[in-house]
Amino acid sequence: MNPNIKAVELEKAYRLLNHGPTVLVSASHGGVANVMSAAWACALDFAPPKVTVVLDKATATRRLVEDSGWFVLQVPNVGQLDLTYQLGHTTLTELPDKLARAGANLFRMDGFEAPLVEGSSAWLMCRLIPEPHNQQTYDLFIGEVVAAWADERVFRDGHWQFEHADPRWRSLHYVAGGHFYAIGEPAIVKT
Amino acid sequence: MNPNIKAVELEKAYRLLNHGPTVLVSASHGGVANVMSAAWACALDFAPPKVTVVLDKATATRRLVEDSGWFVLQVPNVGQLDLTYQLGHTTLTELPDKLARAGANLFRMDGFEAPLVEGSSAWLMCRLIPEPHNQQTYDLFIGEVVAAWADERVFRDGHWQFEHADPRWRSLHYVAGGHFYAIGEPAIVKT
Repeated sequence: MNPNIKAVELEKAYRLLNHGPTVLVSASHGGVANVMSAAWACALDFAPPKVTVVLDKATATRRLVEDSGWFVLQVPNVGQLDLTYQLGHTTLTELPDKLARAGANLFRMDGFEAPLVEGSSAWLMCRLIPEPHNQQTYDLFIGEVVAAWADERVFRDGHWQFEHADPRWRSLHYVAGGHFYAIGEPAIVKT
Repeated sequence: MNPNIKAVELEKAYRLLNHGPTVLVSASHGGVANVMSAAWACALDFAPPKVTVVLDKATATRRLVEDSGWFVLQVPNVGQLDLTYQLGHTTLTELPDKLARAGANLFRMDGFEAPLVEGSSAWLMCRLIPEPHNQQTYDLFIGEVVAAWADERVFRDGHWQFEHADPRWRSLHYVAGGHFYAIGEPAIVKT
């Protein structure tokens, strides 16, 4: 495993999503693994940390989340721009080698079945909190974050280090039609 | 009214939130108006457009949303950095002149009671979709966007124009402790 991957304290896990990045959602069940990108993911609580993510009924990943009860949200970076776009615009149903085509390599963390995507900046391991009404009516899924990790080259001491890291580590923020923005410079309140 | 404020087509309203900015949440009821900042707001659907936002039980704004059934999400910018921070770190319950102290000036749009904050980049007028279980258990509120506007100096032709606008128009993405990031440069997939 990449030696730069370090555990993130659970009480600071919300900071991995607080600035609103586009994420990759991964899950596996019955020997099938998949990953999709999602702009609609959000922190929901601090302690225990919870998240929301919107998973359309047409996605193969949604089915894996429902069947396994687990998913991973990972924060991709500018170095994964093409991968992030491709994972959001192809479907495993039509392209069985979707992951290979997008260049997505998976790994696992001890104690967890759900797969993680190599090269990302951060990972949140989430246990699904079943809420059938939200899932059916709004495609809205809620998870409790039970473990989190980040690459210390871009997140350490409980803070993103975008301004100190290589630009390829900047998080991606999707708009539409293949257009993302990378996260920019710090704006710090003088208190 | 600021002549640069233009209506945004409802089918493109999700783009105002898609890149994950911190927002200002405003609401009013019974002659009381308030605004709070919130990092945990997210698009939920395209058509009709819907949004989620997390409103803690301790906030005065939450009560106004519950009582009126309406709220506005607005996208603040670097020019509103101090205002955004202050609106998230003071409460109307303790500081009755919270809005004046933060320098928040409100206005209204024809046909709607909920107040908007001047100087923001975009505004989404939302009708609360009551979901008592989500509100009580998760502090999670769902709204349908019934109208949207943006300042054409930073959003026009259905797209953010951050790279063409003055840097003061960049959206804010909160981390913690008074530290935000401004949105950065475009990252565009070559298709």
